[in-house]
Amino acid sequence: MMKTDVLVIGGSASGVVASTTGKSFYPDKDFLLIRKEKKVFVPCGIPYIFGSLESSDQNLIPDAILENGGVKLKIDEVVSIDQESKVCTTACGDDVSFDKLILALGSIPTIPKWLKGTDLGNVYTIPKDKEYLDQLKEKLNGFQKIVIVGGGFIGIEVADELNKLKKDVTIVEVLPHVLEAAFDEEFAIKAEEILESRGVKVKSGDGVKELVGNGIVSSVLLNSAEQLEADAVILTMGYRPNTDLAGRAGINVDKKGFIRVDDYMRTIENDNIFAIGDCAEKKGFITRIRRNIMLASTACAEARIAAFNLYRLSVVRAFGGTIAIYSTMVGDTAYGVAGVTEALAERGFSIVTGTFEGVDKHPSTLPGTHKLAVKLIAARDSGVLIGGQVMGGASTGELINLIGLAIQNRMTINSLLTSQMGSHPLLTAPPTAHPLIKAAENAVKSR
Amino acid sequence: MMKTDVLVIGGSASGVVASTTGKSFYPDKDFLLIRKEKKVFVPCGIPYIFGSLESSDQNLIPDAILENGGVKLKIDEVVSIDQESKVCTTACGDDVSFDKLILALGSIPTIPKWLKGTDLGNVYTIPKDKEYLDQLKEKLNGFQKIVIVGGGFIGIEVADELNKLKKDVTIVEVLPHVLEAAFDEEFAIKAEEILESRGVKVKSGDGVKELVGNGIVSSVLLNSAEQLEADAVILTMGYRPNTDLAGRAGINVDKKGFIRVDDYMRTIENDNIFAIGDCAEKKGFITRIRRNIMLASTACAEARIAAFNLYRLSVVRAFGGTIAIYSTMVGDTAYGVAGVTEALAERGFSIVTGTFEGVDKHPSTLPGTHKLAVKLIAARDSGVLIGGQVMGGASTGELINLIGLAIQNRMTINSLLTSQMGSHPLLTAPPTAHPLIKAAENAVKSR
Repeated sequence: MMKTDVLVIGGSASGVVASTTGKSFYPDKDFLLIRKEKKVFVPCGIPYIFGSLESSDQNLIPDAILENGGVKLKIDEVVSIDQESKVCTTACGDDVSFDKLILALGSIPTIPKWLKGTDLGNVYTIPKDKEYLDQLKEKLNGFQKIVIVGGGFIGIEVADELNKLKKDVTIVEVLPHVLEAAFDEEFAIKAEEILESRGVKVKSGDGVKELVGNGIVSSVLLNSAEQLEADAVILTMGYRPNTDLAGRAGINVDKKGFIRVDDYMRTIENDNIFAIGDCAEKKGFITRIRRNIMLASTACAEARIAAFNLYRLSVVRAFGGTIAIYSTMVGDTAYGVAGVTEALAERGFSIVTGTFEGVDKHPSTLPGTHKLAVKLIAARDSGVLIGGQVMGGASTGELINLIGLAIQNRMTINSLLTSQMGSHPLLTAPPTAHPLIKAAENAVKSR
Repeated sequence: MMKTDVLVIGGSASGVVASTTGKSFYPDKDFLLIRKEKKVFVPCGIPYIFGSLESSDQNLIPDAILENGGVKLKIDEVVSIDQESKVCTTACGDDVSFDKLILALGSIPTIPKWLKGTDLGNVYTIPKDKEYLDQLKEKLNGFQKIVIVGGGFIGIEVADELNKLKKDVTIVEVLPHVLEAAFDEEFAIKAEEILESRGVKVKSGDGVKELVGNGIVSSVLLNSAEQLEADAVILTMGYRPNTDLAGRAGINVDKKGFIRVDDYMRTIENDNIFAIGDCAEKKGFITRIRRNIMLASTACAEARIAAFNLYRLSVVRAFGGTIAIYSTMVGDTAYGVAGVTEALAERGFSIVTGTFEGVDKHPSTLPGTHKLAVKLIAARDSGVLIGGQVMGGASTGELINLIGLAIQNRMTINSLLTSQMGSHPLLTAPPTAHPLIKAAENAVKSR
């Protein structure tokens, strides 16, 4: 019987962060991480193995992080957990006893049961699995017409990458526009236009009825009856928590398969078992409803909280829900969103919005200047900021993080309006017209 | 006698923002802006007229902003203010009566009285004056050896631009390193190294004793007795408030020449007269001491506050002091600083610091990835964040703004540690190692 103080199951972002952070705060404890993958992908980097990166080997989380962090690693698969005796059993037949257990089980691609033809050849998904994706990349070399079902983040990122390889790529999205589950329509329309201008075909506002073929897929039938020829189909229709193991072990899992946790990331019925990342349930920071958010950034924040709280409760999940900060790039235009969109806010909030379109350098005659548009959403009565969206250049990723931080601090549009934003010609919008401040001003005026 | 409801004196960033914001919030009032410059430069863009911009005409604040904002413009110079009768007199002999007056008088280059030789030919400064700078740019064409006295932001930016034009440029800085008035030493040393690697000569830790020449400058004598040949000398030794007009009018001005104001930006003895920007006194947000901070970003925040409070007090200067957010670029490396440095904090705070060096994309094999280093400074007892410094790529400007916002919200390093930072391969550090979060973690561990 192997023994460890802390056992972490899962080797992706949250597992790595939980184990190394835990070891760093509790250096006297033994930490063991078990994962089944030989090598682990940087999860958000996956779409970029198809085009921007020369080899998928450039997209690995190095095992040296664990090694340097004093965390032991075992490549194996945990097949059962005994809560009572505090022992896990692996596929290789090893028993591992633990004092504390952290479940970082991740998520797996959704393949809808109602969709006919998903078992045909050349129908793929995008799991976080290097071997599978390396094979997929290899096979795609032989295909020209590729249909991507689902125009969310992964769908459009993979589409844009395959388009760079001169593939004939079509995205099918049932919502009116790509990215519309995450962004308000005016942002989503713009993203769709950019994709199309780059040569990606987009069939939005139309769902998939059936994947058609004889042994291997040959076309995709849409609800509109249109039929798209396809050498290959990639399903990017979302992900579900990978929690069969937890369910079998009697750990409390909700209807959608997420492991239920408290604000310290402990499972609600067992203080010695923690769950973090895609497999753990999340509430919306603003909406307070359950949200199926799967984000490495949220997962890593949860991992840190679990790590701190392993042996004594020291750090509460202060944010009390996910702010859901997403960012992506479409061509050379970056998109970011934090908190709730107008569409989501309309489920209960009386809101005001403010938007402003400016530039990300100043004067705008400087080389490399990119348009920068900001939309803010605030609760009408209190003026508290509840959401923001950004469309811009290279600074978009940190600007949406800034908006996320403002939401986390429950700042009002009035306090934003008078907040100090530094500026520099080569790095930011002009001080006279920072789009964030101007958007706040416009929101205040519309109250 | 001309009449206006609100008179704004000064046409740079804060004057423009105060008048247009004021008009937007009080549309029934008449707004008149008087400035002496025919055309107004974007202040922070000034260094870039020497190299990056083809023509200085690309660096103008367009008058259309005033026009579209409903603000009248008069090109003239106010030479006296009568507080009692509420009338200003201009150089052209016009009298303008006002109900509210906003002083946005700006600043002018410091020319130290103790420095011999500043009246020699070919000795220049960098005022916010298009005509002067256009002539300077023209004259510099004929010069090869240029000595820049003062290695602060303006000094190094102008040096780097002139270096691009293949000039022989030397910076003289009396502090141990360039930028050391704003950054801690490890950041300043790095900036100096980059400048030197780009071909700019740096004489730091050595002051200027005298400018030497016969009618025109020919060399610069240093405290070390070293003598630098010079075809031209540019003094970038700081700026002082341009407040002679205010002083003559009996408006309360402190010893250093800054107009004294309250938290609504009103002059302390006259509620109808406001002062904003470089000419108005500022306190440090953290240190609570007077700081001679001159920043367009701070100026614009003050301008908005004055505008809102013109006719009824509605928005307090919530930040209660300047956070002093600076950013700049040295070559392709960006620098940002917010709040206090370690050096400044040592004037009273017991502090902890945390630093982390990572990357600004992930995996770091992606093209265009830049190193990203973050240093955080927190009060030891409370853990409240009081300062931060960043060295990185294109996202540095907004990342330092994010740190500024965290300081403004008096966040602790613990709350930062568990805050959610969104991530995307092309836009940010990896979620497992965002330098901001890791720096917070290191600060927490060192408490």
